[in-house]
Amino acid sequence: MAFRIGTGIDYHQLAEGRKLFIGGVEIPHHKGALGHSDADVLLHAICDAMLGALALGDIGTHFPDTSAAFKDIDSKILLQQSYDKIKAKGYKVVNVDSTLCLEAPKIKPYIAQMQQTIAAILELEVDAVSVKATTTEKMGFVGREEGLVAHATVLLEK
Amino acid sequence: MAFRIGTGIDYHQLAEGRKLFIGGVEIPHHKGALGHSDADVLLHAICDAMLGALALGDIGTHFPDTSAAFKDIDSKILLQQSYDKIKAKGYKVVNVDSTLCLEAPKIKPYIAQMQQTIAAILELEVDAVSVKATTTEKMGFVGREEGLVAHATVLLEK
Amino acid sequence: MAFRIGTGIDYHQLAEGRKLFIGGVEIPHHKGALGHSDADVLLHAICDAMLGALALGDIGTHFPDTSAAFKDIDSKILLQQSYDKIKAKGYKVVNVDSTLCLEAPKIKPYIAQMQQTIAAILELEVDAVSVKATTTEKMGFVGREEGLVAHATVLLEK
Ligand SMILES: [Zn+2]
Ligand SMILES: [Zn+2]
Ligand SMILES: [Zn+2]
Repeated sequence: MAFRIGTGIDYHQLAEGRKLFIGGVEIPHHKGALGHSDADVLLHAICDAMLGALALGDIGTHFPDTSAAFKDIDSKILLQQSYDKIKAKGYKVVNVDSTLCLEAPKIKPYIAQMQQTIAAILELEVDAVSVKATTTEKMGFVGREEGLVAHATVLLEK
Repeated sequence: MAFRIGTGIDYHQLAEGRKLFIGGVEIPHHKGALGHSDADVLLHAICDAMLGALALGDIGTHFPDTSAAFKDIDSKILLQQSYDKIKAKGYKVVNVDSTLCLEAPKIKPYIAQMQQTIAAILELEVDAVSVKATTTEKMGFVGREEGLVAHATVLLEK
Repeated sequence: MAFRIGTGIDYHQLAEGRKLFIGGVEIPHHKGALGHSDADVLLHAICDAMLGALALGDIGTHFPDTSAAFKDIDSKILLQQSYDKIKAKGYKVVNVDSTLCLEAPKIKPYIAQMQQTIAAILELEVDAVSVKATTTEKMGFVGREEGLVAHATVLLEK
């Protein structure tokens, strides 16, 4: 057995008048994440964790935000394409764990749907995909609701 | 062999007149962490890492801060209960690594005691439990001593 | 097979008139990282991840910033010495993943050289060493270019 670990961290600003996509799920909120794609902070962190585990670069390398091809793109497509790259190297995902840092809104009601969405793309059981959430207790830019952050970790097996 | 990885991140504000518990150890300081429980940022991050590795939700799901049952609770109890949940799934902990981000006080003198406390609960040798500490070099809310952060990673084996 | 995982996080302020070393590579920039050593945030995070995986303390324990021996030291020496400590315990590195959080400069042109530098010291193939980079989207102390942060994760095998 050959294992690899990878981690990803992603940051986005929050702005009025944008839709908020997290983990492939649209979440009702008065602010959404700013970005070239749909700005899905969680899916981006998971992409980076998978790519990082095999030293395949990062999401910015493969899906540059200067490319019109990725403008407003659904990040589930980026997750699928990142997964395809690790499959092409002979690896599968063992499990994914992740933490969202955001002050609002409460995302607990959407976590099961995020897990199902991610698990379907990564060919995993739902219990191999974890999405956790925390506030930063009002501190820093996350606490001031200026932005949100996602941390993801993956274990891969050849 | 079946492995899983998990990570946890926890944030607490620091306030005058609170006791400071980190890693199950009370540390003399003029400020302590604010929270519903004893606000032990390190034990909370380790709980989340274990729960996350098996997609069992997070500490907020299992020990809600709206429940009187967890008011001022000793977080060693939460660590024990989180560990019981992963044991019930047939898993043991291989190792724990963690990093505390706080500006003050110096916690080096307490690290050995933290390791022993955590190792005893998780049925590990002390050399399988790592607690590291760093300042943020005076930057951000940690640097201003408004709060502290813990990051924990665990490797589980079935 | 016996595996261990470890993580490291390191923070440095950026200041005018310092050289900027990241991943063992000198990067042209009007600011550099402040620190007792050459302040290589990425190599420090990797040292901490390796030491943490085996609960061997942290970089501050082994290479104290109060010691004249480590003044302005090349952090590649610290990486070599940290690696020697895990080899002495019978472990090798399976892979390293890392993320740099900094607003400027663009470090993509230097990543291949960082990978080669780190891989050579850790006796790894280049494709087992990943260095990723992200801005924090202008938010926080990283976004204001006051400092930079590195996160590293390692998988070790006995
Ligand atoms: Zn993103
Ligand atoms: Zn907590
Ligand atoms: Zn450093």
